[in-house]
Amino acid sequence: MELIFVTSNSNKFREASAILGRSLSQRRLDLKEIQAIDAKDVVKEKAKDAYSLVKRPVMVEDTGLYIIKLGGFPGALIRWVRGAIGNEGICRLLGEGEDRSAYAETAICVYDGREFRVFSGRVDGTITPSPRGSGNFGWDPIFQPEGHDRTFAEMSADEKNAISMRAKAFAELKEYLEGAVP
Amino acid sequence: MELIFVTSNSNKFREASAILGRSLSQRRLDLKEIQAIDAKDVVKEKAKDAYSLVKRPVMVEDTGLYIIKLGGFPGALIRWVRGAIGNEGICRLLGEGEDRSAYAETAICVYDGREFRVFSGRVDGTITPSPRGSGNFGWDPIFQPEGHDRTFAEMSADEKNAISMRAKAFAELKEYLEGAVP
Repeated sequence: MELIFVTSNSNKFREASAILGRSLSQRRLDLKEIQAIDAKDVVKEKAKDAYSLVKRPVMVEDTGLYIIKLGGFPGALIRWVRGAIGNEGICRLLGEGEDRSAYAETAICVYDGREFRVFSGRVDGTITPSPRGSGNFGWDPIFQPEGHDRTFAEMSADEKNAISMRAKAFAELKEYLEGAVP
Repeated sequence: MELIFVTSNSNKFREASAILGRSLSQRRLDLKEIQAIDAKDVVKEKAKDAYSLVKRPVMVEDTGLYIIKLGGFPGALIRWVRGAIGNEGICRLLGEGEDRSAYAETAICVYDGREFRVFSGRVDGTITPSPRGSGNFGWDPIFQPEGHDRTFAEMSADEKNAISMRAKAFAELKEYLEGAVP
């Protein structure tokens, strides 16, 4: 199956190509994202939207940051929350002494016009009391993966990519594609 | 023009019927809402979605709570934020001494399959330091409209409806409909 990764982010496209080890093409389209905490819900609608524009098998991706104490919020809505209150503000959403557990999860949806297939990769960790590190991007300075004493922003891009939720999700997709296409 | 108000909320339907003073029918459909701060963006996509299901002229509504200091956030995303951190949490998003200005805005979109018409009603006010009152619903306890010393939740439903953003938006729509349909 020839897949078209619909994303405006070239870094994600390069990462997917490297992990999947197959020819993948990129289409830059600005897709609508529905309001939902769970990125798995967001990617299904996004894939439907992408397919209606591209009319060939598509894959789309979305990543959320889920804070346990807040019932998973902000999840897929993270960019709006970060845009409004910043990483510092997110750290302050949790009072002192409260459970700071969180997980980062990437959801990928592949849709061929008939069937939706959703793949995901998850990294458990904690929201740090304040941002640390300046590497990488987005909310990396406030997420410290389990078993590590550094945030994603204190790691090199290679270190982060080796353990990231996105890499795990792409790996799950790769396994499916290799099974499906002998 | 015969209009179908697509909403699962019977109170909103009754309010619209009373203000518009014309026969309106209700369709209960669960419509997808896109991620956006501005309810005017949300209602356009929602109307498109509603029209594709109903195939007759539709109207849809959405209301946001916009906090000036946070660049308008949460706006149309208010229900997710309130679900996660509650009204108390929203009050705490603004530190002491900070500008607490906010506005509530209802956006209505009418779509006949050809043209989108957006109507809106706005009430300026402030986010109270803590919730007050138990009347009405949602974030009413933390929004105090300008020129009043009580929150929406400290008013009776009739008092609130007389000055609300929703009533203003319906009134703007009524004016248009009366001009358009002699």
